[in-house]
Amino acid sequence: MRTLRELRGMVEEGLAKLAYPEKPWGLYEPIVYTLQSGGKRIRPVLVLATYDWLTGGAQPLDPILPAALAVEVYHNFTLLHDDIMDHSDLRRGKPTVVAKWGVNGAILSGDAMMILAYQILCGMKSEQFPGILDRFGWLAMSVCQGQQLDMEYEGRNDITLPTYLEMVEGKTAALLQGAVRIGAYAAKANPEVEAGLDQFAHDFGIAFQLQDDLLDVYGNTETFGKRVGDDIAVGKNTYLSVLAFEHAAPPQREVLEHLRDKAAYLDTEAKVEQTVAIYDAAGVEPLAEKGIEQYLNAAGAHLATVEKRIGAPAQALRELLASQIGRTF
Amino acid sequence: MRTLRELRGMVEEGLAKLAYPEKPWGLYEPIVYTLQSGGKRIRPVLVLATYDWLTGGAQPLDPILPAALAVEVYHNFTLLHDDIMDHSDLRRGKPTVVAKWGVNGAILSGDAMMILAYQILCGMKSEQFPGILDRFGWLAMSVCQGQQLDMEYEGRNDITLPTYLEMVEGKTAALLQGAVRIGAYAAKANPEVEAGLDQFAHDFGIAFQLQDDLLDVYGNTETFGKRVGDDIAVGKNTYLSVLAFEHAAPPQREVLEHLRDKAAYLDTEAKVEQTVAIYDAAGVEPLAEKGIEQYLNAAGAHLATVEKRIGAPAQALRELLASQIGRTF
Repeated sequence: MRTLRELRGMVEEGLAKLAYPEKPWGLYEPIVYTLQSGGKRIRPVLVLATYDWLTGGAQPLDPILPAALAVEVYHNFTLLHDDIMDHSDLRRGKPTVVAKWGVNGAILSGDAMMILAYQILCGMKSEQFPGILDRFGWLAMSVCQGQQLDMEYEGRNDITLPTYLEMVEGKTAALLQGAVRIGAYAAKANPEVEAGLDQFAHDFGIAFQLQDDLLDVYGNTETFGKRVGDDIAVGKNTYLSVLAFEHAAPPQREVLEHLRDKAAYLDTEAKVEQTVAIYDAAGVEPLAEKGIEQYLNAAGAHLATVEKRIGAPAQALRELLASQIGRTF
Repeated sequence: MRTLRELRGMVEEGLAKLAYPEKPWGLYEPIVYTLQSGGKRIRPVLVLATYDWLTGGAQPLDPILPAALAVEVYHNFTLLHDDIMDHSDLRRGKPTVVAKWGVNGAILSGDAMMILAYQILCGMKSEQFPGILDRFGWLAMSVCQGQQLDMEYEGRNDITLPTYLEMVEGKTAALLQGAVRIGAYAAKANPEVEAGLDQFAHDFGIAFQLQDDLLDVYGNTETFGKRVGDDIAVGKNTYLSVLAFEHAAPPQREVLEHLRDKAAYLDTEAKVEQTVAIYDAAGVEPLAEKGIEQYLNAAGAHLATVEKRIGAPAQALRELLASQIGRTF
């Protein structure tokens, strides 16, 4: 069975080998820039690790590699367009595509990137290709649905935790669920195995997004690679803002609303600082850490159920899950 | 053999029957709005007409309909994103999606629309599905390449006719070529037939774009449905601007450059008016009409070659070609 490190190496090698038309280079340069700027490669590794595990750990991974790469290219496309919508200028410690090439260049290169994802996927030689395509279409559309909800929730003060989590299911968890389902389906796993892995990836995905939310406030720009406080600056609902609205005393809740909706006289730094002070007073950080831990534990439990059925440990998936505990980047 | 009118009816019916998830409705409303706001349906009709003709005119068209609809949805997606990039507020006589829902809503609904196009295509039940998917990927990527060139050429004064036509090949002709190639391939036509139809659609596509360029200046906003003079206002290169730079006397060429690059003191209306005055003096309108006629004739000749090989007239394709002569909308 391949290790997490070996699987990541395959993804990096596969991405580096992608071929692009020579011109117009201006269309492809932002794509190459995005794909070469790192990232954790969690989603393609989920595809490969699932397939590798379920096929016994010694089959060639070439037949499934295009699907893994397509998932990663699609994921990076969503980041590229999200950065336009969120006016983000920093990602993975580097200027975003929209900061470097402008809105029009970012829209168009993103479009080309989505087509590229489908083209890579369509390069698969597999009798299960139609089913894989279905799963890919589902994850792709779910991400758009989640992003739409994210946009609609912006600036709203009535978002409850269940409503927030529904958005996270689309925006983040669906991609991870789609990844393991593609891996399982391609490995001809039975539907119960696929469904169990889907639950694992669902909880893993939610934990992952909640961690991102936590790092946006309590992380470090240098290790995290994004500007700390960005979510607060643009008035996004996050796990922390939802917890704060739930747990802060009524007068503090009013200050939070004021800071988000009306405090145009404050510069961003002061707005972030005063918001974080209320988060601190409401004890949001430990609450969030506890919630994240619960989702990671639940993911581990779902995985254990599938492992028992298969009769072999999912080593790389376990490694991946363990690497999320106390993540700082 | 079906008439143009019958084929259009099938496209309209197919588009009206498309199913959307119920929520988030904000993601799908702009898609429905775009698809219901009319349009000539040339591209899906090209798919159906080609298939109908090459299969003898009496086969059911259900197997090919998803491909035709996918091509139309993809085309409308490109318009939706183009309108963001070009800051257009009017299309088909109605506010554009970006004017109605803003930049972020338009980016995201466009993304969902592209995924929808692939999902519709993937609903096909055909043993030739992989080849159809290849052709669809080619047309999709070609449109992005053309749009990229269009963007790179904006404001440049050194664009020659061949350079301009290369951009049009990607931006407009490729979609028409892809449409007939999908129809021909699905009908199991031999490669020479597919190649001949490709040449027909190439010249038809170029004529179509050059007509659009002509109507942008000499058309009527009410019948054309777009704001007349838009291309001039944003400094786009068009068939007319390229002809004007080629045929205007040197002092007039200098005024054209000045109007495009430096005349920030003029309001848009005055800029358009003065530019058109130079176009008139250079005799650009009749030159453009002649060029368009030549491309339409060449398209007809390519079609005649294929008709001879098939031994039956391509009635609906002929009707479609004829409907382009002297088009005003």
